[in-house]
Amino acid sequence: MTAIDLNSDLGESYGAWGMGDDAAMLAVVSSANVACGFHAGDPLGILKTVRAATEKSVSIGAHVSYPDRVGFGRRDMDVARDELIADVIYQIGALKGIAAAAGVSVGYVKPHGALYNRIAHDPKQGQAVIDGIKAVDPSLVLMGLAGAPILELARKSGLQVVAEAFADRAYTPDCQLVSRRDTGAVLHDPQVIAQRMLQLANEGTLEAIDGSTIRIDAQSICVHGDSPGAVAIAREIRRAFEAAGITVRSFLSA
Amino acid sequence: MTAIDLNSDLGESYGAWGMGDDAAMLAVVSSANVACGFHAGDPLGILKTVRAATEKSVSIGAHVSYPDRVGFGRRDMDVARDELIADVIYQIGALKGIAAAAGVSVGYVKPHGALYNRIAHDPKQGQAVIDGIKAVDPSLVLMGLAGAPILELARKSGLQVVAEAFADRAYTPDCQLVSRRDTGAVLHDPQVIAQRMLQLANEGTLEAIDGSTIRIDAQSICVHGDSPGAVAIAREIRRAFEAAGITVRSFLSA
Amino acid sequence: MTAIDLNSDLGESYGAWGMGDDAAMLAVVSSANVACGFHAGDPLGILKTVRAATEKSVSIGAHVSYPDRVGFGRRDMDVARDELIADVIYQIGALKGIAAAAGVSVGYVKPHGALYNRIAHDPKQGQAVIDGIKAVDPSLVLMGLAGAPILELARKSGLQVVAEAFADRAYTPDCQLVSRRDTGAVLHDPQVIAQRMLQLANEGTLEAIDGSTIRIDAQSICVHGDSPGAVAIAREIRRAFEAAGITVRSFLSA
Amino acid sequence: MTAIDLNSDLGESYGAWGMGDDAAMLAVVSSANVACGFHAGDPLGILKTVRAATEKSVSIGAHVSYPDRVGFGRRDMDVARDELIADVIYQIGALKGIAAAAGVSVGYVKPHGALYNRIAHDPKQGQAVIDGIKAVDPSLVLMGLAGAPILELARKSGLQVVAEAFADRAYTPDCQLVSRRDTGAVLHDPQVIAQRMLQLANEGTLEAIDGSTIRIDAQSICVHGDSPGAVAIAREIRRAFEAAGITVRSFLSA
Repeated sequence: MTAIDLNSDLGESYGAWGMGDDAAMLAVVSSANVACGFHAGDPLGILKTVRAATEKSVSIGAHVSYPDRVGFGRRDMDVARDELIADVIYQIGALKGIAAAAGVSVGYVKPHGALYNRIAHDPKQGQAVIDGIKAVDPSLVLMGLAGAPILELARKSGLQVVAEAFADRAYTPDCQLVSRRDTGAVLHDPQVIAQRMLQLANEGTLEAIDGSTIRIDAQSICVHGDSPGAVAIAREIRRAFEAAGITVRSFLSA
Repeated sequence: MTAIDLNSDLGESYGAWGMGDDAAMLAVVSSANVACGFHAGDPLGILKTVRAATEKSVSIGAHVSYPDRVGFGRRDMDVARDELIADVIYQIGALKGIAAAAGVSVGYVKPHGALYNRIAHDPKQGQAVIDGIKAVDPSLVLMGLAGAPILELARKSGLQVVAEAFADRAYTPDCQLVSRRDTGAVLHDPQVIAQRMLQLANEGTLEAIDGSTIRIDAQSICVHGDSPGAVAIAREIRRAFEAAGITVRSFLSA
Repeated sequence: MTAIDLNSDLGESYGAWGMGDDAAMLAVVSSANVACGFHAGDPLGILKTVRAATEKSVSIGAHVSYPDRVGFGRRDMDVARDELIADVIYQIGALKGIAAAAGVSVGYVKPHGALYNRIAHDPKQGQAVIDGIKAVDPSLVLMGLAGAPILELARKSGLQVVAEAFADRAYTPDCQLVSRRDTGAVLHDPQVIAQRMLQLANEGTLEAIDGSTIRIDAQSICVHGDSPGAVAIAREIRRAFEAAGITVRSFLSA
Repeated sequence: MTAIDLNSDLGESYGAWGMGDDAAMLAVVSSANVACGFHAGDPLGILKTVRAATEKSVSIGAHVSYPDRVGFGRRDMDVARDELIADVIYQIGALKGIAAAAGVSVGYVKPHGALYNRIAHDPKQGQAVIDGIKAVDPSLVLMGLAGAPILELARKSGLQVVAEAFADRAYTPDCQLVSRRDTGAVLHDPQVIAQRMLQLANEGTLEAIDGSTIRIDAQSICVHGDSPGAVAIAREIRRAFEAAGITVRSFLSA
């Protein structure tokens, strides 16, 4: 692999409240998962984020969520199929409108938080997300968890997909993310993380939490993290990639 | 005039709460001002409204609003220019996404409630709405109050405009709407209203509240009303137009 | 039993959107479960409902919910314990403020919708609701599903409880509500329902959906229903009780 | 004057979004204006703030706002009288519930942002706020802008009032705040500000922006500011007061 995508969750401010260091991350990543207003992101903040990403030639993805702003989209919700389809369409449409105003296009969709985790393995909500995406624009790519059933489901439904790995997360021997509730679930050392991502890009493998080697097929790496030091980690990953001759660029630019 | 547009505010339900009789109105009007989620309209409700309108070949307009759901967009708000631009872009985008999912396009924008009244005469917020529309899609038509400065402002800014009259409202001798706080502001008799609208369509004139004759240049008539009996009024207007050989069709279909 | 409580979900309007016929129901019931703003109810609407209930000497309960207005509190949510405790406190406090302004007190708490169903059997969220109630006012009574574990959990935690049965719902042989997805889950005939409630009040029994007789120990009957004709059903129940010499009065007035 | 109150706007986080350094400010101030959920503050965040304030023996005030979270309550809104009364009651009630859960009481009400500025001079909305406060608890004190008509209006209506000055704001020769749009409206130097506040506490005077001396009768000083360095300013004011033998304590503790 001579090129890889780095993606991050951006535009997650809301009105007077800021979150993260979007400007710093936009200097590092190649794809921006932009909040669409349901878990975060007010229209003006979203517009500013899309403009800033566009100035850095960073690709725009719709970071669609459950309608749960106070919970930041992190709480599982039993949303009905038709509601979820419409919620996905609405959010993608809103971001496409903002992107049009910024002179760019939305290239992909990455569900956020609890919705992301739910659809990774729940074909009912997963199909609703897929159908929502297809209804509004079937050329959109779905970004999902490497190895999760949602990717195959989306492919069968006619969507292009991109698989992502998480830079700062430990994996189980069967290629799942170690639960955040377990010790060692989140990695913090930028250099350790960068070396792992180099191995992932070069060999398609990672060391699981038990020391075994697992195969992860990912075209994008998520450098967002709730962990402090997210920007430092992202920078170190990018530095390592560039030192190794691996180009960081959006999977959409291939 | 051998054709005229009838428009109505639709899709104003919200989740479990219904409002109005959209099915009945869609059988009468030629243009639907569809709520975009800021004063009314949840994604699924909006999608259902757009689909129902499309089945009836009714044109779709974005009924953009201040972000004030509990106040139904009826309360004046001092929204800053850049916020208002982004709010307009977001709402139009969301409705365009829903329209795409329904296989149709959004053809025009009609601001709602307090925003509608404010921009009729306030060039600052008016220009922000215009700039928001142009940013997301300069081919969209702005629907505004016949005779109000906003229409000329929009034209100068390069937008197409359509002027509307209000079927169930009385007018002052200088072509303004009589304030709802004044006696006689809202008309209730379907036949009286229909005769007034016939005169408007045929001669471009209306009788003002003082008995004088005023000139109103309108290509669309709003048959929405907070008044009970809105559907009956709308039907009577359509019946009168058809009996007089005036076609009811969207201004967009010309 | 010579007295029983009838309760109904009221104050479920939101801003410009109405719901149900509160005035009619307040003429029938003895306890009003008043929305607190999270699934329904804006401050002015809540205040009007509490005043109207007070005029009819109807007891006031806090109808607390998940924070999900667009879903009307009907969607299960994985809210964390400390969030749920605070949500319950906030909602009860808000209603107590409104009740104070109306010169009355809040007497009980009835969780709404998905939260009601969840805590009936989920001790984790159930304990959070209990702890929230105790934190703000330990004299409040918890209203819950007759026969469900939540009532015993609340009693052990030091709360007074009242058990309720649902007038328009069928029961399984093991005293559960028949799922709304199953045929026959919702009853519609006012006279059949009234006869069932008479039997419940007089003998503490009901006929289950399989024809067997089950024991239901309930001090209150919920006459709210999504079914049309809710008011007619409520009136018939009250009429039947009065004809049988059973007083309809709040469990709080005992 | 041997004692004065320092107040600050606190509890203005929302869900995942933080704002300000509440812990640092609670070590300095004697009164906390706690957000009630309409412009900021989710129930859990409010509860944590009230508990933290209580640990520091800081008095609790209800920082009531227009319902405008995305605008942080900073945008003027034409809210009707009965809506505003109910909004005030609801917010105070919610905070009283949270305070009860924390074992303390709400002592005063300070309207926030645009509502604060509006009622300072608008008797219509001002009276609505006053009537809302009186309806829920007439023993609550209203905190308002020193010298503004709202204080006299509240006094005449039977409310106790406390007048506040703004530490980091310049004043006009006629005792108004210099508009934020004008040069020099916001002061930044902690020592300059502390000296001004000492003069205010000792002599009841301030130097206006034109160099003249104005009389400001204030029992509380607001050390909140949008300016960076708010904590440093607050600490310097407290240090200066203590060095001068002026006790910082809540006006409620007198």
